Amino acid sequence: MARIDTKSLINGDIRSVSRAISFVENNRSGTEALLDNIFPKIGRAYRIGVTGPPGAGKSTLVDKLISLIREQEKTVGVISIDPTSPFSGGALLGDRIRMSRHSGDAGVYIRSMASRGSMGGLAVNAQEAGDILDAAGMDIVIFETVGVGQVELDVAEAADTTVVVLVPESGDEVQAMKSGLMEIADIFVLNKSDREGADRAFVDLRNILDLKSTQDEDWPIEILQTAAMNNEGIDAVYEKIQSHYQFLQDSGGLLKKRQRRYERRVEGVVRQHLNQMFWSADRTEKLTDAIEQIETIKKSPYKLAQELIQDLSI
Amino acid sequence: MARIDTKSLINGDIRSVSRAISFVENNRSGTEALLDNIFPKIGRAYRIGVTGPPGAGKSTLVDKLISLIREQEKTVGVISIDPTSPFSGGALLGDRIRMSRHSGDAGVYIRSMASRGSMGGLAVNAQEAGDILDAAGMDIVIFETVGVGQVELDVAEAADTTVVVLVPESGDEVQAMKSGLMEIADIFVLNKSDREGADRAFVDLRNILDLKSTQDEDWPIEILQTAAMNNEGIDAVYEKIQSHYQFLQDSGGLLKKRQRRYERRVEGVVRQHLNQMFWSADRTEKLTDAIEQIETIKKSPYKLAQELIQDLSI
Repeated sequence: MARIDTKSLINGDIRSVSRAISFVENNRSGTEALLDNIFPKIGRAYRIGVTGPPGAGKSTLVDKLISLIREQEKTVGVISIDPTSPFSGGALLGDRIRMSRHSGDAGVYIRSMASRGSMGGLAVNAQEAGDILDAAGMDIVIFETVGVGQVELDVAEAADTTVVVLVPESGDEVQAMKSGLMEIADIFVLNKSDREGADRAFVDLRNILDLKSTQDEDWPIEILQTAAMNNEGIDAVYEKIQSHYQFLQDSGGLLKKRQRRYERRVEGVVRQHLNQMFWSADRTEKLTDAIEQIETIKKSPYKLAQELIQDLSI
Repeated sequence: MARIDTKSLINGDIRSVSRAISFVENNRSGTEALLDNIFPKIGRAYRIGVTGPPGAGKSTLVDKLISLIREQEKTVGVISIDPTSPFSGGALLGDRIRMSRHSGDAGVYIRSMASRGSMGGLAVNAQEAGDILDAAGMDIVIFETVGVGQVELDVAEAADTTVVVLVPESGDEVQAMKSGLMEIADIFVLNKSDREGADRAFVDLRNILDLKSTQDEDWPIEILQTAAMNNEGIDAVYEKIQSHYQFLQDSGGLLKKRQRRYERRVEGVVRQHLNQMFWSADRTEKLTDAIEQIETIKKSPYKLAQELIQDLSI
């Protein structure tokens, strides 16, 4: 087992950071101890989530944001979460190349992580990667991912400020996908606003927002128009992120968000441990036996679960 | 509480079926008892999953499949799973209308269910709706949904045969999304094959499939070309579904699939129960107290979870 040198990690040594992230990514035993060790150093980094439908230009936007962050001499780590699978290698290479112009810059760390599709698996690993970057002294951590299904909720959960990137084009079902995104946004970016139909899309989106009761009444959600490729409107996005941060600090919302996040993480760990504790060799065998008689069993999963659990006192 | 009349449900009374599905959809207490009651009648229906990216023409395909199923005088229930949210109403209305021409046919039952985005929530509810249709005597149950993120895995989990519908058009990230779909398909349908670029897409897809080790070596995955709107190629899809069913029966794969599904359902119920049992008022308070000191706590979620769990013997 590769040992993680916690001290050099905390001093910001990039090799230690990389190794530690690989460590949590692969769910290696010792992850808990690593997290325990670095946790006292955590809580300084500001965490930004960037999500949206495929092709919205998220990577380009993040690339430009990195430049603005660096102009302020802040350091930034990006966790880019790939939606599943061995086949995605080629597809996402383009994104990585887009951001690679920062690769010579020691104040920028960019890392891809695969989304596992396992329940809650992504959120946990990505959050832990964020913790590592935080402990290593990064001022800002960005989580970037395609907003599909559960993943977008995971990202919103992991971030202090969630930026949802949309584009002025959509089919019916894409619209429906977006709607999940509606509920997690602190800031909307309508990218590719130099395209035809952008003004119409802006009005449509504003109308939908008007119907929507905002998460936080005191933070009015705005739609910012950008053309990230041409570097148009990115300054305004970064300013808006910073004012959301300020807003959260002043209102006490930041602490509340972080408390809720911590609570869910504890609950997640508990859930996992309970499950591991429960499935002793004995109980696993009992389940296997029952399943082998499945054609005759005529018993609902609830009933069998109840039988397995009945003598339990927790 | 509306009472579910199990007897009329099992006799195929559509009002009872509808009421029962609403019941499980809303996680009403009594779901477990309902499932216990109907479970002895379950196992006859063949379960088909139809999934794919937004706009691939899944609803149109399902609509045509329904006609073929009805020609054989079999009955069919469709569970159509909507990706999230209040805003999707308008967007998905189109799909519902497409299938509504079967609405006067007593041998066809079509039902939309909202995807909750909650971990595992969809799979459980949709599977239970499938159980209800099965117990009510439907010969075939179809689960139809946009294949995004976790949802596509849930559908594959719930189905005996999984049909993945693709179209000859894609951006980079859409490609990546598809790749998740690659791993769950028993049958590929390349819809809108009358479009430009369809032949190229067919070759590309076949090349990817060649690289892929199939789930089951004895079942060669094929790509069927359709133009569902014009009713072209649908017969071949339905025949292929039927031969996959035959293959699963002959090879014993059907039983194995159903055993695995049952196992996961038991595990899911156990996980949920353990969690509910664990979070007593006492432990919830302990967590809340810890969280209120979050700025000073400097303890990882693992450590706190460990403390909450330490005296436990399961």
